[in-house]
Amino acid sequence: MQEYGEPLVLDEVAAPQLEDDNDVIVRIAAAGVCGSDVHIRSGAHVENLGRADMPYRLGHENVGFVHELGRAAAAQGFEVGDPVVLHPLISCGLCRSCRAGNDMYCEAPAFPGIDGRTHGGFAEFMRTGVRSLVPLVPGTDPVPLTPLTDAGLTAYHAVKKLLPLIAPGHTAAVVGSGGVGQFAIQLLASLTPARVIATDVSSARLEAATAAGADVVIGAEPDGDGGAAVRDLTDGRGVDVVFDCVGIAPSIADSAGMLCRGGVLSVLGASDAPVPMSTAQYTGMEISVIGNYVGTYTDLVELVALFDAGTVTCHHQRYALDDAEQALLDLAAGRMIGRGVLVP
Amino acid sequence: MQEYGEPLVLDEVAAPQLEDDNDVIVRIAAAGVCGSDVHIRSGAHVENLGRADMPYRLGHENVGFVHELGRAAAAQGFEVGDPVVLHPLISCGLCRSCRAGNDMYCEAPAFPGIDGRTHGGFAEFMRTGVRSLVPLVPGTDPVPLTPLTDAGLTAYHAVKKLLPLIAPGHTAAVVGSGGVGQFAIQLLASLTPARVIATDVSSARLEAATAAGADVVIGAEPDGDGGAAVRDLTDGRGVDVVFDCVGIAPSIADSAGMLCRGGVLSVLGASDAPVPMSTAQYTGMEISVIGNYVGTYTDLVELVALFDAGTVTCHHQRYALDDAEQALLDLAAGRMIGRGVLVP
Amino acid sequence: MQEYGEPLVLDEVAAPQLEDDNDVIVRIAAAGVCGSDVHIRSGAHVENLGRADMPYRLGHENVGFVHELGRAAAAQGFEVGDPVVLHPLISCGLCRSCRAGNDMYCEAPAFPGIDGRTHGGFAEFMRTGVRSLVPLVPGTDPVPLTPLTDAGLTAYHAVKKLLPLIAPGHTAAVVGSGGVGQFAIQLLASLTPARVIATDVSSARLEAATAAGADVVIGAEPDGDGGAAVRDLTDGRGVDVVFDCVGIAPSIADSAGMLCRGGVLSVLGASDAPVPMSTAQYTGMEISVIGNYVGTYTDLVELVALFDAGTVTCHHQRYALDDAEQALLDLAAGRMIGRGVLVP
Amino acid sequence: MQEYGEPLVLDEVAAPQLEDDNDVIVRIAAAGVCGSDVHIRSGAHVENLGRADMPYRLGHENVGFVHELGRAAAAQGFEVGDPVVLHPLISCGLCRSCRAGNDMYCEAPAFPGIDGRTHGGFAEFMRTGVRSLVPLVPGTDPVPLTPLTDAGLTAYHAVKKLLPLIAPGHTAAVVGSGGVGQFAIQLLASLTPARVIATDVSSARLEAATAAGADVVIGAEPDGDGGAAVRDLTDGRGVDVVFDCVGIAPSIADSAGMLCRGGVLSVLGASDAPVPMSTAQYTGMEISVIGNYVGTYTDLVELVALFDAGTVTCHHQRYALDDAEQALLDLAAGRMIGRGVLVP
Repeated sequence: MQEYGEPLVLDEVAAPQLEDDNDVIVRIAAAGVCGSDVHIRSGAHVENLGRADMPYRLGHENVGFVHELGRAAAAQGFEVGDPVVLHPLISCGLCRSCRAGNDMYCEAPAFPGIDGRTHGGFAEFMRTGVRSLVPLVPGTDPVPLTPLTDAGLTAYHAVKKLLPLIAPGHTAAVVGSGGVGQFAIQLLASLTPARVIATDVSSARLEAATAAGADVVIGAEPDGDGGAAVRDLTDGRGVDVVFDCVGIAPSIADSAGMLCRGGVLSVLGASDAPVPMSTAQYTGMEISVIGNYVGTYTDLVELVALFDAGTVTCHHQRYALDDAEQALLDLAAGRMIGRGVLVP
Repeated sequence: MQEYGEPLVLDEVAAPQLEDDNDVIVRIAAAGVCGSDVHIRSGAHVENLGRADMPYRLGHENVGFVHELGRAAAAQGFEVGDPVVLHPLISCGLCRSCRAGNDMYCEAPAFPGIDGRTHGGFAEFMRTGVRSLVPLVPGTDPVPLTPLTDAGLTAYHAVKKLLPLIAPGHTAAVVGSGGVGQFAIQLLASLTPARVIATDVSSARLEAATAAGADVVIGAEPDGDGGAAVRDLTDGRGVDVVFDCVGIAPSIADSAGMLCRGGVLSVLGASDAPVPMSTAQYTGMEISVIGNYVGTYTDLVELVALFDAGTVTCHHQRYALDDAEQALLDLAAGRMIGRGVLVP
Repeated sequence: MQEYGEPLVLDEVAAPQLEDDNDVIVRIAAAGVCGSDVHIRSGAHVENLGRADMPYRLGHENVGFVHELGRAAAAQGFEVGDPVVLHPLISCGLCRSCRAGNDMYCEAPAFPGIDGRTHGGFAEFMRTGVRSLVPLVPGTDPVPLTPLTDAGLTAYHAVKKLLPLIAPGHTAAVVGSGGVGQFAIQLLASLTPARVIATDVSSARLEAATAAGADVVIGAEPDGDGGAAVRDLTDGRGVDVVFDCVGIAPSIADSAGMLCRGGVLSVLGASDAPVPMSTAQYTGMEISVIGNYVGTYTDLVELVALFDAGTVTCHHQRYALDDAEQALLDLAAGRMIGRGVLVP
Repeated sequence: MQEYGEPLVLDEVAAPQLEDDNDVIVRIAAAGVCGSDVHIRSGAHVENLGRADMPYRLGHENVGFVHELGRAAAAQGFEVGDPVVLHPLISCGLCRSCRAGNDMYCEAPAFPGIDGRTHGGFAEFMRTGVRSLVPLVPGTDPVPLTPLTDAGLTAYHAVKKLLPLIAPGHTAAVVGSGGVGQFAIQLLASLTPARVIATDVSSARLEAATAAGADVVIGAEPDGDGGAAVRDLTDGRGVDVVFDCVGIAPSIADSAGMLCRGGVLSVLGASDAPVPMSTAQYTGMEISVIGNYVGTYTDLVELVALFDAGTVTCHHQRYALDDAEQALLDLAAGRMIGRGVLVP
């Protein structure tokens, strides 16, 4: 990225070097293309992220191979050539949050490909920290795991938090069966006894939802129906848990409207839309709304274990690194099927 | 209550009789006067509760003495004269919710003094069910426990749900230091290691908050300050848990604005006001909002145990049953200090 | 049962009658035959259960059809002919334990077929209480669900308690792949992401364990190997959770010996053998040992939902009621394959 | 320590130096004297810990002031002169356990004063790692916090694990009111609504138990009474949770014998004695036994916050570093009152 609003350019630059005991250089095998990349490139996030140091390399969903290791990574047993998946954050490891295992709340994080100061994975090589490395079984091709690092991680974190609330006989709804939703459906189908209902405005994504393990799929109205269609499937009782993977006004109104008494709405998608419930609805129905922010390193380790066991799979579409700009355009235009990944 | 909008009238009627093995006749020692009584009398709840069978006896916060017992209560060891506190709901005991201990979700409940069909405790005697009786230590005067049955129960239920989230070093805020808030403050001060901050628009209630155990009290702006004053007390970090005991627009905006990352907002007060947070705030800050609906029988048993141990106390103001109308007027006009109770 | 130590006799007696609003007469479809029946018949439990009122009808794993209903069951919507599974306990519904949903800790229970005063299901008809009835989908044949009421319920209760502790990448062991163990294996395989290792001294039961979903099966030494074989499968680290479904000296020594640091041993089988761990092992390894006592009504409702969803299945072998004595003898001699059920 | 079995000798040695970015040199303010020191000095732990590199400095309960900092500690904001409490373990920060916040299960730990390779705090200066430092409020005298680092930490870890199980109306017993027990009593009294019963064979320690907040104290029989005295205090029902801080045969028999149905026994003291319960007792009573192994860094941070808030206090007795041998002798002879600390 040379400038906000301008096309991405493939350029030759000096390879990143180890600067610290904790550093690791990773040879990138694939870097996912995400809606955030479109937004950052447009300059939409300058206000909250600050202006990036241009030229800046995007890419926050990264997998690859260990290329060069600092002392700490070597002490952990990593070797050159090891396939790895990268947790999106380089956490400090020493603040209170890190000490309690909450990497995402790290008080001194670097966020490669996002923060404007730490280069991401739209490149051949990338410098990261040992705390980002999740090792894979030797011989694994890391490319198919790329979508785990963000969409998968967010879904796993959200589903894991609600596992204790989901019992046999319960119904779970996934509102929005796109990238994050596909993971949520797979995880609910394999890790819980719930009947899983998936909704989406796209019939193609509903087909994918069925393949992912949804018991019932329902076409969503673009403007929402207040959850009526899903509620009807439960004899009017409502569903026990809803995972809203869209987070826009019509979806969140549907999600809030389909809950049973004591129901829980898990929010994974984000927009400026509020959750349309009054305090009287929160108390009268005893509703809980739970926000989710990516996931911890331990979450990602567990998700990779599920991938290894065949419990979750990821659809992806390969682009050459050269075609990064095309990938962003395809994504922005809704022409991408599955997660797009850039392969150097 | 003879008619909506008309003054309450003290009238001589036939005493209630046992009709079922599970029935119990309680000689009322006191019945609390609640904002709900004002609303029901005004006719405001006809839409959701249906029209009451007039004349109807209000009163859903009841304590007294066992006067006559059906077979089931006798089998439980109750005897005539035993002091009791009444759980507000007569639950069926057989539906799925009751079987799991969730009385408040009973699928076939009677709600004395509320539902328009089951008479409440603004009377000398009241028929209830054995499942409502919480026994007190013999010799206890039940009158001071009246506020436990509703305000206290709601606060205990809400605080208990969040206990596992409150650790040493945490800060808890109670927004609104009225009836429910006073209980929340006492419970947080005695059951958790949190630093407790209480807010209110009334300086009298802030004094009571200090007496109840708040570590810091802050005068709230009538229109709210978006939580700024409380946030300042935490070096800008925000508080870990907030109990909003008001639930109106300015209070809930304050509550939402004072949370830290990963913070939890517990909603106890109710109005038409929404919780003013976008889905992007839920996800970016990983916020949870938890609604609360009264509490279970087991909650009330535990709360009575806390009262017995001196952990919670209740302020109340006695009115003669004859003065029921005056009590409603005082409450509506904000002239009541502490909970008003009608004593036959 | 006419007398301890004597053969069971099929005799014509008066049909049981409704005596209470809560009573229900069930036409028995099947009654499971359990090791407890052998022990009770031998007189082994007279000391702790007291002497039975002879003649006494055994049978504590009962399924059938509603035949006659008291007022409470009718009010719950049950109708004559409804297929039902019976929770083993008739709980009072009013004590503290029942109110909290812990039926098994009921302070005034009746235990049909066990307690010596309440007749069980080795009969055409049986009187039970409405609180024991778990309704099935209309048209369901209840016979195959018989083993759910005891072996299945115990396994479900135990597995459910540990679900929050089992994460992707974990290993769970089931020691003893008999009746209870088969359920534990199915539940772990379907409700958790754990790798499941099953052990048994019988190769036939190990084959069944594989069919039930075990990832690895291991033949156990009759005298135990201290858990060495299972530990070897985990590169010496040990397993995260063990469900000991046998509870005798060699099995419990194996179970204790195969745990990792922080591991949890769930005890489902019972004998006089202690758990052979010193307090230094509890603290040095931070081990937890968790006992299990049958399960709640809600547990059984959830387990039936899993059966309906095809998640668990039960093997059983039918005997005519006339052959009750033969069934006890077959069981005592180890000649029974799967759970034996008496069909009137 | 020059040799096992020989007296400790105060000797002049080279001051420890920073060797790593993560290293910190602490000027010791106090180092606790513990039973483990007596055992290690006697050579009793050579088998499991290996032979120490002699001469070796004992001392695993250390507090002091930052004297010299590596890069990592400086980046965390520490400055020379800051008062600190040291977590007993130097954890690696990178293994799976550390990443999940479970420092005590670190796969590559150093254990100063214990492991025979890493010098402890019976010295003027000590080298530790940044991950051991818990900062105190500037100006705090760290000496009184010394017992928090081991006895306090173990008690807090154990009590915190059981907090969700302790409700109003419950009874908790602390068996053994010595160092660890005193902390358990204080924590139970301040963080839970339980009635607290403390036992000990020493009347002096029972007086301290009362001062620490026990509601009832009971003299224990040296050979144990099977929990009878405590059980009598609960009308024969038994206590809900027991914390056994002794772990020897008579104490653990008492502890096991005083539990109610569904009760939980938390083990904090260690010996070769087994927990004397058969698998039939585990299942019939649904008992859980929970081992405890020190505590995490986060636990220690929380415990220090409780100390700052005045919730816990520690008794200690000062010895000059010169008198280390005398302190060990006093401890071994039972002449020490409160925790002994060596002050350089």
